[in-house]
Amino acid sequence: MAGRPRKPAARRDLQQAALRLVRRHGYAGVTISDIARAAGVSRQTLYARWDSKAELVLHAIFEIASQPDPDLSGPEPRRVLLENFLRAIFADLSADGDTLRGLIATTLTEPGFLPVFRARFSAPREAIMLALLHDARARGELPATADPELLSDFIHGAFWYRLLNGQPLPPDLAQRIAGAVFATPAPDQSAG
Amino acid sequence: MAGRPRKPAARRDLQQAALRLVRRHGYAGVTISDIARAAGVSRQTLYARWDSKAELVLHAIFEIASQPDPDLSGPEPRRVLLENFLRAIFADLSADGDTLRGLIATTLTEPGFLPVFRARFSAPREAIMLALLHDARARGELPATADPELLSDFIHGAFWYRLLNGQPLPPDLAQRIAGAVFATPAPDQSAG
Repeated sequence: MAGRPRKPAARRDLQQAALRLVRRHGYAGVTISDIARAAGVSRQTLYARWDSKAELVLHAIFEIASQPDPDLSGPEPRRVLLENFLRAIFADLSADGDTLRGLIATTLTEPGFLPVFRARFSAPREAIMLALLHDARARGELPATADPELLSDFIHGAFWYRLLNGQPLPPDLAQRIAGAVFATPAPDQSAG
Repeated sequence: MAGRPRKPAARRDLQQAALRLVRRHGYAGVTISDIARAAGVSRQTLYARWDSKAELVLHAIFEIASQPDPDLSGPEPRRVLLENFLRAIFADLSADGDTLRGLIATTLTEPGFLPVFRARFSAPREAIMLALLHDARARGELPATADPELLSDFIHGAFWYRLLNGQPLPPDLAQRIAGAVFATPAPDQSAG
């Protein structure tokens, strides 16, 4: 912990500098030295907290750019919660899709990064999705035979697949995914 | 085309040498020089045909290790065709999963390779899956409201997601995916 700044806010400042740079120049176009320079700290200050650029950016995405969990305490149909949650994620990915692609590339080229990425990125997102889908099944919005683990793989898989194949994630994709998972026609927007 | 061997079989020999090496040593552990040496040709012979190791290995996977398309001319339920097709793909990926991860990494780190990979890998597989799903819908095995394009993304996405997250692709996953897509209980194995 040598070199750790005394103010807790500094951690967030460093992460924000990192996110700002990768959003502007692309994940591959930014080095840890660039981030240190932009944040006005030494590379050692960054390496005291994070093992690599990938880990710093991963933590920045997790702590700054993550969506709040869907609120499962209220009465809203889980299909609507899913659609809104996906819509927010896809909006984030229009800013951070290149960064996510860069992080996934790092899991593939530096195998030691995969467990870090799982722990900080995919596993928490799977847990959120599973909670929503199990809750929907318990409320009868999904049939008793529904397989939440597989549906979660379908949902995350669909947008990873599109992201990695260079295809867009338009807002109506959120509605199509929620509609297919809940296998009911789209709600009538004119009804109130 | 300088240096192109006269016998058409040689192309396949070169591809088989490439596949054999990446299966044994891992995609990242094999260079184009290794492949040339194993095949008993010069690097120039390989570069006359393929732009890179990634392209050579991609073509090898496509031409040697691809599954035959599901047979849509027969009466077999499309759910069964889907399950058997996925089972065969997952068996292939137990041999070539590391290679596919290496090729996907290359699409992320060398953007010029993504269109090549789409044209030779993902797009043809999407076309096969879409043909099966459209046929299933036309035969009434999927509801008229089914969205084949999205279901195809669900199916490919689910196993890409698992593969990229270092998770297994067990044979029963094929049955679970086919069951969820067709949303019917698993067939009774004891019935004849």
